Amino acid sequence: MQNQSKDIGKLAADTIRILSAEAVEKAASGHPGMPMGCADYAFVLWSKYLRHNPADPAWPGRDRFILSAGHGSMLLYSLLHLSGYGISIEDIKNFRQWGSHTPGHPERNPAHAIEVTTGPLGQGFAMGVGMAIAQKMLAARFGKDLFGGNIFSIAGDGCVMEGVSSEAASLAGHLGLGNIVYFYDDNRITIEGPTNLAFSEDTAKRFESYGWHVLKIDGHDQAACAAAIEAGVAETERPTLIIGRTHIAYGSPGKADNASAHGAPLGAEELAAVKKNLGWENLPEFHVPKEVRTVFENRAVALKAEYNLWQNAFKAARSKADFTARWDAFFSGETAPELAERLLKYLPEKPQATRQYSGAALQQLAEELPGLVGGSADLAPSNNTLLKKFASIKRGDFAGRNIHFGVREFAMASVSNGMALFGGIIPYAGTFLIFSDYMRPAMRHSALMGARVVYVLTHDSFFVGEDGPTHQPIEHLASLRAMPNMAVWRPADRAETAAAWEAAVMRKNGPTALMLTRQEVPILPMDAARVVSSARRGAYILADTADPQIVIIATGSEVGLALEARTALESAGIKTRVISMPCTQVFEAQDKTYRDKVLPPQLRKRVVIEAAATFGWERHAGADGLLIGLDRFGASAPGKVLKEKFGFTAKSALERISRKWPELNVKI
Amino acid sequence: MQNQSKDIGKLAADTIRILSAEAVEKAASGHPGMPMGCADYAFVLWSKYLRHNPADPAWPGRDRFILSAGHGSMLLYSLLHLSGYGISIEDIKNFRQWGSHTPGHPERNPAHAIEVTTGPLGQGFAMGVGMAIAQKMLAARFGKDLFGGNIFSIAGDGCVMEGVSSEAASLAGHLGLGNIVYFYDDNRITIEGPTNLAFSEDTAKRFESYGWHVLKIDGHDQAACAAAIEAGVAETERPTLIIGRTHIAYGSPGKADNASAHGAPLGAEELAAVKKNLGWENLPEFHVPKEVRTVFENRAVALKAEYNLWQNAFKAARSKADFTARWDAFFSGETAPELAERLLKYLPEKPQATRQYSGAALQQLAEELPGLVGGSADLAPSNNTLLKKFASIKRGDFAGRNIHFGVREFAMASVSNGMALFGGIIPYAGTFLIFSDYMRPAMRHSALMGARVVYVLTHDSFFVGEDGPTHQPIEHLASLRAMPNMAVWRPADRAETAAAWEAAVMRKNGPTALMLTRQEVPILPMDAARVVSSARRGAYILADTADPQIVIIATGSEVGLALEARTALESAGIKTRVISMPCTQVFEAQDKTYRDKVLPPQLRKRVVIEAAATFGWERHAGADGLLIGLDRFGASAPGKVLKEKFGFTAKSALERISRKWPELNVKI
Repeated sequence: MQNQSKDIGKLAADTIRILSAEAVEKAASGHPGMPMGCADYAFVLWSKYLRHNPADPAWPGRDRFILSAGHGSMLLYSLLHLSGYGISIEDIKNFRQWGSHTPGHPERNPAHAIEVTTGPLGQGFAMGVGMAIAQKMLAARFGKDLFGGNIFSIAGDGCVMEGVSSEAASLAGHLGLGNIVYFYDDNRITIEGPTNLAFSEDTAKRFESYGWHVLKIDGHDQAACAAAIEAGVAETERPTLIIGRTHIAYGSPGKADNASAHGAPLGAEELAAVKKNLGWENLPEFHVPKEVRTVFENRAVALKAEYNLWQNAFKAARSKADFTARWDAFFSGETAPELAERLLKYLPEKPQATRQYSGAALQQLAEELPGLVGGSADLAPSNNTLLKKFASIKRGDFAGRNIHFGVREFAMASVSNGMALFGGIIPYAGTFLIFSDYMRPAMRHSALMGARVVYVLTHDSFFVGEDGPTHQPIEHLASLRAMPNMAVWRPADRAETAAAWEAAVMRKNGPTALMLTRQEVPILPMDAARVVSSARRGAYILADTADPQIVIIATGSEVGLALEARTALESAGIKTRVISMPCTQVFEAQDKTYRDKVLPPQLRKRVVIEAAATFGWERHAGADGLLIGLDRFGASAPGKVLKEKFGFTAKSALERISRKWPELNVKI
Repeated sequence: MQNQSKDIGKLAADTIRILSAEAVEKAASGHPGMPMGCADYAFVLWSKYLRHNPADPAWPGRDRFILSAGHGSMLLYSLLHLSGYGISIEDIKNFRQWGSHTPGHPERNPAHAIEVTTGPLGQGFAMGVGMAIAQKMLAARFGKDLFGGNIFSIAGDGCVMEGVSSEAASLAGHLGLGNIVYFYDDNRITIEGPTNLAFSEDTAKRFESYGWHVLKIDGHDQAACAAAIEAGVAETERPTLIIGRTHIAYGSPGKADNASAHGAPLGAEELAAVKKNLGWENLPEFHVPKEVRTVFENRAVALKAEYNLWQNAFKAARSKADFTARWDAFFSGETAPELAERLLKYLPEKPQATRQYSGAALQQLAEELPGLVGGSADLAPSNNTLLKKFASIKRGDFAGRNIHFGVREFAMASVSNGMALFGGIIPYAGTFLIFSDYMRPAMRHSALMGARVVYVLTHDSFFVGEDGPTHQPIEHLASLRAMPNMAVWRPADRAETAAAWEAAVMRKNGPTALMLTRQEVPILPMDAARVVSSARRGAYILADTADPQIVIIATGSEVGLALEARTALESAGIKTRVISMPCTQVFEAQDKTYRDKVLPPQLRKRVVIEAAATFGWERHAGADGLLIGLDRFGASAPGKVLKEKFGFTAKSALERISRKWPELNVKI
């Protein structure tokens, strides 16, 4: 590699290269190779095409940029610094340090135009597809003048290899998301070595098979980068993939094209060699040439003009009747108080499955929340997720509100994350609870980013029946409750389902998983409005006798069983309390007074009934409690047979209580 | 659809159609459409090409058949019945009933030639890729005469849409797995309706891009099916995908090509119409025409001859020196006792990360267990999973033992399942613990099927450091411990790592997840051989003082911290026991005497220290214990900074103990 002729583009790209390599070196940790390889393309994109506004990072009309190859975070931080966001050179020097604005992988931070958290590969790619859908849906509602931008991303080999990008790419091609312009950093190096150790597919052909517009360029040829971006922006019928042949650690005499540059500092010696190679040897650390600053200052001026045009269009739109009210309805994401009480009116009063109550609730929620859109991974009829009054989105027509995600759970969840974080949209995503495993990485990502996604997870226990153990969740409740910031609700009846949906859509700082039954559940014997207000505290006393000797805690479909067991216990003279606990986490967040009132510390005979793994329930039952659950895989048989076989009957519960605490002297 | 000319092929396919539809009808539950659509292809495959032996279902040289579209289970049960496996008409009448041999989805059952459990879509496809790799690896070791067969599968739209099949297909193309002959049941119907609601990619082109040999046929043209299978078998350089245009519920006048036939019985009326349409109206339920039985009887005779040929080749091979010993070493999957003690000799004696001990252990395990093969999802250098003395497998050369899975965690785990269940192979699969989420569905599948797969999960806590919250597992330990039949080990030092590996490779009825540190851990202050024998019980007393007042339970990298805290407590006059608990599940399975000796019921002041979510630890600490964990997402900073910030120091532990139990009067 020779010294480049120092045109301004090369100078700027080299600035990004050296800032990135120096930051990694100072942190003694990080990924220098990717920023050095992608600097040319990224500079062209950010200096000429990406529409954004550092003075108003939240500008709804902005383009979105997603660094799907999140390990190249220094690329993004360098661009943000140069573009005038709140990332200072001091921040860059604090790369990967506690409390810094420059963590190891980009972490969603709207103030700094970091649209999404990335790092787990492929998810940025898929979230961008969600943003592209959201943009098109909002364009269908508010006009292309306001939402006519593009979604840009840089993805790496890992992103392209991960299954989630295949799913998302297939969906993007199907929907004709012409507002996508992605760059594939084809550097042919992964951690284990050359990509051809494991990867020899024809990626261009693969993306063409999905219906993408594919371009191949030299990723270090800035003119080619510009032409490709222009072609991608001009193409409005198909998503664009620009396959850029790049060299990892471009500019490094000793480490270009080498896996050693992927995930470790170059080392002082090699960094010096890079600087020498790029004609940078006499310059101080973290240096930004004045000419480069000027490029970005000029770009900011140009962007300001684009921004003003948008604001003018926005002002013009606001002058139209009802525009502001409609806009606010989308972008506040709010509805009137007492939502659950209102939902109750629309839920059937007879016993049904909670998935059916959920389906009924959704219809009314759609009336109140115009930004609520969603669908299932090919299980809408089973998940009851169809918005009956509305059409489905399809290629060329995004006015609908139903989304057919196909049999692609992981992409569904990632796409939902992208939609939620685009703004204006409240997405829900449905599948069987068992298949939450398929989308678990994206569910965790919702929780980590604080994305308001509602997961509608039906068929929530072995009561699924005949489909058998492959379709019967066991450990899923526990494993989702263990996840930070994931709210897990398992409602017991119609009123609790209303409360759960209210909590889910009103929760602005994170996702909710609604666990819903396939099978019918009884209506709880308490005034529905009171159930709603009680359920809002996560757990409450549903049935009681003064000075109870024993307490049964249950969730969802087992609350009915707990009530049956109570009736039997009371007949045997045992004073019994029943607690319905639709959301353990909300209950755990209540004040101690309330918690102790519901579950008094001195009431030590505690039973938990839940048709799932018992793991974690000692938290409420104590180590000496009786946990009635299922710590094995399920089986294929009708639900009513499994109920007997797995001991989910009042009789079986009584037997176990009697064995556990002979002193109660339960007569069976 | 008209009455067919009743050649024997059609008669046999119709037999499968009607057996399937009748079984679903009787069960009042199931999926009739897929078996009816795939009956022609499946009949051709099973009556002419699939090499197997009902008299010896475990025949190592057999072809493998995987029903990836597992919901079409009645197709498989019909074929197994007709082929003479132990599935009777009575079993078929008991479809989807408790304890039957015919559960809702196929559940691995070697006696009945059900190779793998299927149902969760895409995984059968990927497991077949694993079987194809295993077959080629064994062919490289024992000859193509013994392992020259093929892996057949029927996959549906869902299988093709799921990301895992994309990952697996890309890998299969890369490795040139010419022993794969898959059928894609292109019926263009999914649960929500026509596939084109969500799916319009050019699947043939996509698979060609992966390097597959793709054929398109009319899936109801049995001659075309035969020709395609022959072409697939003849193609030895590339995996074959036969795209068969079929009609769901073929033969049903009212429900063919209709989503309603996917997942529900046809109904008595429509079933009668099918029977009439197929000229079957005067025949009893569950009828198998004599001519059809004859076809399969003749096939059994032909297969017997093929089987005998194989046995002759096997006998000839056995006459060669050392063949039997080599064979048994692979197929017993056993090694001499005291494996962990032997491993100790090969593990460095200085403090290292447990991932490094694991890497050293692997080298020796590879010497003792010739069937041990594996790799990482592009993280081998970080996971320490490379077998240094051995080559990597690659297209045309499967003599190696390292596998480069690419950035494809889910496929890696599914492929490992397929390899484990093929026989002769003990696979291990490495990635960061955080990315266990990406392969969780397949890990569950390992547990459900009882597959001996060893998951090597390094970078097991926030001590990962700078990479930040996207790379720091929190809830993963809990969520995997909650999974039935998944053994989770988190060793604390070199000796525990040896014990964990021993447990993992000797566990024949299920998978093991080894949680390993990125960072250095101290050597435990106990004789290594004693640590090994103690660790085999899951938990043990590592340090103690008579009549302890307090007990600290810790795992993995926090055992060292527990010992530091103990030292400080003892200095303050508090008698302290430390328990190392590398495997909660093995400990929980010990007899009560041992459990009570380690963790006496009266010793109520219990502290747990684990750098992870506390969820589930009340089981051992009691509801009144002190759980020192991390119930939030991590952060990007050096590990030693996070240690302070997150309170994983002896000082912080002491402060918390002191606050929790002021009566201990701990002086800090």
